[in-house]
Order: sequence, then C-alpha cells, then structure tokens
Amino acid sequence: MKEILCGTSEITGASFSIYPMTDRFVDIILSSLKEVDTSKVWLKSDDVSTCVRGRSEHVFDVVKAIFLNASKGGDHVVLKAKFSNGCPGDSAGDAFMAEDSILMNNGLSQKINQEVATQFALYPLGIPGYMDVIMDQIKTVDQQGVFSGGVHYASRLDGDANSVFAALESAFEGARNSDSSHIVMTVTMSANSSSRKEGQ
Amino acid sequence: MKEILCGTSEITGASFSIYPMTDRFVDIILSSLKEVDTSKVWLKSDDVSTCVRGRSEHVFDVVKAIFLNASKGGDHVVLKAKFSNGCPGDSAGDAFMAEDSILMNNGLSQKINQEVATQFALYPLGIPGYMDVIMDQIKTVDQQGVFSGGVHYASRLDGDANSVFAALESAFEGARNSDSSHIVMTVTMSANSSSRKEGQ
Repeated sequence: MKEILCGTSEITGASFSIYPMTDRFVDIILSSLKEVDTSKVWLKSDDVSTCVRGRSEHVFDVVKAIFLNASKGGDHVVLKAKFSNGCPGDSAGDAFMAEDSILMNNGLSQKINQEVATQFALYPLGIPGYMDVIMDQIKTVDQQGVFSGGVHYASRLDGDANSVFAALESAFEGARNSDSSHIVMTVTMSANSSSRKEGQ
Repeated sequence: MKEILCGTSEITGASFSIYPMTDRFVDIILSSLKEVDTSKVWLKSDDVSTCVRGRSEHVFDVVKAIFLNASKGGDHVVLKAKFSNGCPGDSAGDAFMAEDSILMNNGLSQKINQEVATQFALYPLGIPGYMDVIMDQIKTVDQQGVFSGGVHYASRLDGDANSVFAALESAFEGARNSDSSHIVMTVTMSANSSSRKEGQ
C-alpha cells in the first residue's frame, strides 16, 4: 500500500485544473500562471491537476486569479476545483500558514469582469448532520444573490466571477465552522461558453 | 430558497463533463454522445455538465463510453465526473431502475485502448468512520493493479481506461456496501496529455 496524502486541520488546499477548450490551451494555462502571484501558497502541478495549499484566503485568491486570467481573453475556459480543509494526513505546505492575510491577487482579479455559470457542492465529512450544514450554507450563498437553484448533485450559481467566488468562499468558511472537522467543496465554473448547449 | 435536487437511495447518478482541449471541442463532444447508447439511463445536459442517472452499472458504462469515444481520436481530453448514490432528494430517473443489467456500450468500449492518468476520491457521508471506508476501497483498487499512490486530496490511478474504470466502479460499489448510505466519488481522468507537464 502506498501512502495516502491529505492535510492537517488548519491548512486549506485546492486541487484544481483549468480547461481552455482551444488548441492554445497550453499557452493560456502557462501565461495565466505567470501573471498570478503564488508566493503565499505551496504549489505543485502534475499532468492531471495543480494543488495549492496554505491559508484559506490565499488558496481562494490564487485559484480565482488563475481562472480569471485564463478566461479574460474570451476563450471557453472551465475551472474544476476541489477545496479541502481538515483532511487527516500530511503537512506539506504548513510553512505557508505563517503568511499574513494580505491578498496578492485581489486587485488584479477585481478588474476582470467575467460572467460565469457554476456548480458547487459541499461535503462535510464525519458527521450524521451533514445535510443541515449543507442547507445552512446554501442559505448563505442565496443571501449573496448568486444562487440559481439546485441541480443534480450540486447547486448552481450564476453571476460575476468575483461575486460567485465570494459566495463560494463564505460557504466553505461557514461549513468549516460546523461540527464537521473535514470539509470538501467541489466547484465547476464555466466562462465564455460559446453557447449554453455547446458548453456541455 | 430554491429546491435542492439530489437522489433516492437506490439510484446512482453521475454529473460529468468532457473537456477536449482543442478548437473542435463541440464536434468531439457531440459525435461522442452520438456513438453511445444512452437508452438505459436518464440523461440531461446543461451548459456546465451532463447528468446521467439509473442503475449503477449503466451509469458507469455510459460515462466510460462517452469519454473513450471522445478521446480515441488522439486529442487531449479530460473527464471530470462525480458519481453519487444515496443522496437524499428527488427521484428523477427512477423509471430507469427497471432496466436489465445488460451493458449497452461495453463491447464498444473494450475495443478502445487508451492509457489514462486518473485521480479519484471517495466521500462516504454521514458516518464518523469514513476514513476506514476510504482506506478499505483504496486496498480494493490496489489489488487491481492500477493504483499509483496518494496525491493531495485524491488517489492516483494509471493504466488502461477500461481497467481504471473497473477499479473505480468496484471502489464505488464497495463503499456503497459500507455503513454510509450516501457515497460520492470524484474522478478526473486525462487522456493524450501532450506532455506530462502541459496537461496541467
């Protein structure tokens, strides 16, 4: 049996990928990464996904900035991300927990207006009352004006990417304050779908 | 508050998307869907994802066939899928539970040899002992010869797509037989990555 890696109770991580549906996907991914300041997170990429880990606010800041920079050229770009906190396991990236909370990319991101269609789901693990935690956070998101209803196995959010990210982050942080010590949130965010049907 | 949709205790569902990293992504998705027999599952697409629901074996059969048909032309194609069983909620697609268990696309899929790099994670909800369920199913996958070790927030599988899918399905079914009544499994599967680095 090989080792199973996960995280410590404080650190937040995101395993994510950016999918630009164009022949220039490599250029778009690489130039987006270049424009984003990742100095406050632990970062590792492989052939399947990229993982960033550190203080929760920097993890969200970096993932949002990479997605926004990849989508700002108008290509159909999809972000698939899984945010996690409290997963029992290793401590890679713990050094980044000492960073301050000043966001490195928020100024850049706020300048980019990008409508997105999003599906997200929360998984508060280890507790019988997980559905209550989910429902509470759906209410949080609904109050922020981006909630569009339930779809199968997820909830749908529509609106400006900065607003949708703010709602996602507050739902994740809200769930962290529940009885569950291990929270997972999955996010699919689509920008510039050439048509509502074609985006699939 | 709008409705939250999920599923009944018997029905399995998969919310998934195929991402061909090419300008021809629409053609690839549509022609792949055309080649696959989806008659034994409930299917609905929107601009973010496609959802198939029905008997577990047909859900896996259809998702695998769509991915294999999309990737067989050699383009870099990624599948992101979330399989779910036992989610409390609606019953759309329940009519498909009366289908027999003869797979409609397995013959087609078995003819396609496709190496894939995969990350998957299991989330058995509602029980304190969820990590034990996960570890048991990692052992199941390891016995099938495709397990490559842990990555952050997931486990990695490498090998032929048919073998990897068989391992994923057995892990999912194994977890369904645990104390948890609600199982979620996330899968990222990458084919034809132009380079191990570029695939991101």
